[in-house]
Amino acid sequence: MSYPPLEELAARVERFQEILRAENVDGVLLLQGADQVYFCGTTQSAHLYIPARGRALFLVRRSSSRIDPALVPAEVLPLRKPEEIPGLLAARGLAAPAVLGMELDVLPVNLFRRYEKIFPGEIVDCSPQIRKLRAVKSAYEIGLLKESAAMMDGVFAQIPGMLKAGMSELALAARVEAAARCAGHMGLIRVRGFNQEFFWGCLLAGPSGGVSSYFDGPLGGPGITPTFPFGVGRHIIAPGDPVMVDYVGVANGYQVDMTRVFALGHLPPDLLEAHNTSVAIQNALAAAARPGVAGGELYDLALEMAQRAGLAEHFMGYGDQVKFVAHGVGLELNELPVLARGVKEKLQAGMVVAIEPKFIFPGRGAVGVENTFVVREGGLERLTCFPDEVVII
Amino acid sequence: MSYPPLEELAARVERFQEILRAENVDGVLLLQGADQVYFCGTTQSAHLYIPARGRALFLVRRSSSRIDPALVPAEVLPLRKPEEIPGLLAARGLAAPAVLGMELDVLPVNLFRRYEKIFPGEIVDCSPQIRKLRAVKSAYEIGLLKESAAMMDGVFAQIPGMLKAGMSELALAARVEAAARCAGHMGLIRVRGFNQEFFWGCLLAGPSGGVSSYFDGPLGGPGITPTFPFGVGRHIIAPGDPVMVDYVGVANGYQVDMTRVFALGHLPPDLLEAHNTSVAIQNALAAAARPGVAGGELYDLALEMAQRAGLAEHFMGYGDQVKFVAHGVGLELNELPVLARGVKEKLQAGMVVAIEPKFIFPGRGAVGVENTFVVREGGLERLTCFPDEVVII
Repeated sequence: MSYPPLEELAARVERFQEILRAENVDGVLLLQGADQVYFCGTTQSAHLYIPARGRALFLVRRSSSRIDPALVPAEVLPLRKPEEIPGLLAARGLAAPAVLGMELDVLPVNLFRRYEKIFPGEIVDCSPQIRKLRAVKSAYEIGLLKESAAMMDGVFAQIPGMLKAGMSELALAARVEAAARCAGHMGLIRVRGFNQEFFWGCLLAGPSGGVSSYFDGPLGGPGITPTFPFGVGRHIIAPGDPVMVDYVGVANGYQVDMTRVFALGHLPPDLLEAHNTSVAIQNALAAAARPGVAGGELYDLALEMAQRAGLAEHFMGYGDQVKFVAHGVGLELNELPVLARGVKEKLQAGMVVAIEPKFIFPGRGAVGVENTFVVREGGLERLTCFPDEVVII
Repeated sequence: MSYPPLEELAARVERFQEILRAENVDGVLLLQGADQVYFCGTTQSAHLYIPARGRALFLVRRSSSRIDPALVPAEVLPLRKPEEIPGLLAARGLAAPAVLGMELDVLPVNLFRRYEKIFPGEIVDCSPQIRKLRAVKSAYEIGLLKESAAMMDGVFAQIPGMLKAGMSELALAARVEAAARCAGHMGLIRVRGFNQEFFWGCLLAGPSGGVSSYFDGPLGGPGITPTFPFGVGRHIIAPGDPVMVDYVGVANGYQVDMTRVFALGHLPPDLLEAHNTSVAIQNALAAAARPGVAGGELYDLALEMAQRAGLAEHFMGYGDQVKFVAHGVGLELNELPVLARGVKEKLQAGMVVAIEPKFIFPGRGAVGVENTFVVREGGLERLTCFPDEVVII
């Protein structure tokens, strides 16, 4: 199992400590898996305390057997319960934080109230700073993203051999998921936030592609039960159905998001044309995107092209349209930046975005492409390389 | 897709309203998927408002196209943002709640602060009441649990045909997961609470079974990457390895939890004996459990039997031991009741428990059985029926 170089992790902690000092936060206490992975390369049932100055503490309840102290940029100590933390800080000469950062975007109220008793100072939300820091990936992280991308290119290349007429979406999903697992997919897809119920992604054939859902994306899907009304359904795949496979690939913590359309025999010409419009929009965004360009500008460009193609009504949903065309990916599926209406924040080199211009046709299906790109100084570098065109089998 | 009978859902709402009135809560606003599924049979990006008296409101942001008003025990209305809720209540003659219940065990702080502005009254935690209500299953729910159990019995019956020497845990997991998906497994396994990262369960062969993790269960597993250090690893399965398959089955929202041990050729006699002790403990608990028996009594009985067998050190973990032997299952994996040290709460008819006495041998593996049972007036009824003994292939 590959582990990030210690100097890489230490540099992440140092950059975050600079931000904390600039914002007058005395220390942060991080509980969430993805954030611990970012700073320590792994996660346990643990608290990661990062002071604005000084050495971080990785306080592990269970299982300390899983942490090699030589691999993390922190002193590793056992912890039974958070009430012990102030004593541990004091014993190490670390001041009690007057302003403590916590992940208030995900930390539940009941837990927070427990920490309020332990830390009588002010507790502020440090999640915006973490999300901003994590949005710009290092060369090491981009290397991991390339591993996930290569894995998914390999999985998508197997799909034409799996797809047969009369097969259900669910049966195809089972085969795609098994191929991804065999290729080293870790399974868990982290989506930051409350109630973000997600499993693999959307494999939607024909009318299933036109079904929207609770999930804030262009696709939804019927699901196979009303108790989880999202994603893969039971539609029997027939010739002419667009079979949209929008699955998230994650081999080593880092996610790539990728979508292709397959079809048995043929695809109706208007759907094929809409797919080609999606590819054209993606390519136009990829040509226009570079450091300094605002997310909102790129969204506007995508929307204009959809309008010119007469497809505005179908763009990024039908009825339940979402107002973005690309989102950041990394340890979580909903990272920064977002290429969405009105976004003023500018792209920076090292950001990673999944661009997904899609068109939804109720009762008929969804078409469009999605690829994951790194923002480089000169423009975008594409990570997922399987051809964009509809694959007719 | 099967949908719960409306009268069943209406009865759940009514029972909950009785509890709210008894506890002087004026209404609850439920956001989490599992809780919406319990009362409405499905979930969306929505708010479910249940007043102590009067008709519930299902306020749907997206996608209202997915809710059939005839199937839910609530008035269905569109909602763009929660700030609109007080106006909607007033327009329906519902008083603004002076005491509002919310799911404070899962609701993040930032979201909560938004609701505090919308509802100037007191906001209290209603999750204990919901969890207690949900712990006792109806005949309809038990029917769904039986569907999940039959699905998993069918999947486990396929494992002997899948397991070959030289196969990795991950390759076996891919096949088991594909079989489960083909059989209608919905994939998502809901675990209540913050940061409960989980995927399928634990399929652990040989030494992987001895690796503990952040997860509060007897098993952990190495995972395939330090970024998700849980569950299935890459151990190559050899003759004599205990291959422990502890997977959660969920066909229709309702989970059964089930564990069996497989082995190629043979299993070392002491591990086989420990497995048989696990079966004996399970059977003793199943014989002793009935309405009125406290969860702690049953845990003590299990621990005594493990001690008498000389296996106390290996019981429910090694080093990182957990202090329970069974947990409730249903829409979520960590439901009530818990059969744990010191638990005074008594079993009631209709509760559903997964009993999992397990023994962990570091460096060698894990053995033990797990089955899901319904508490009936006369004792336990078993739902997962595949034979308990180690399957030698």
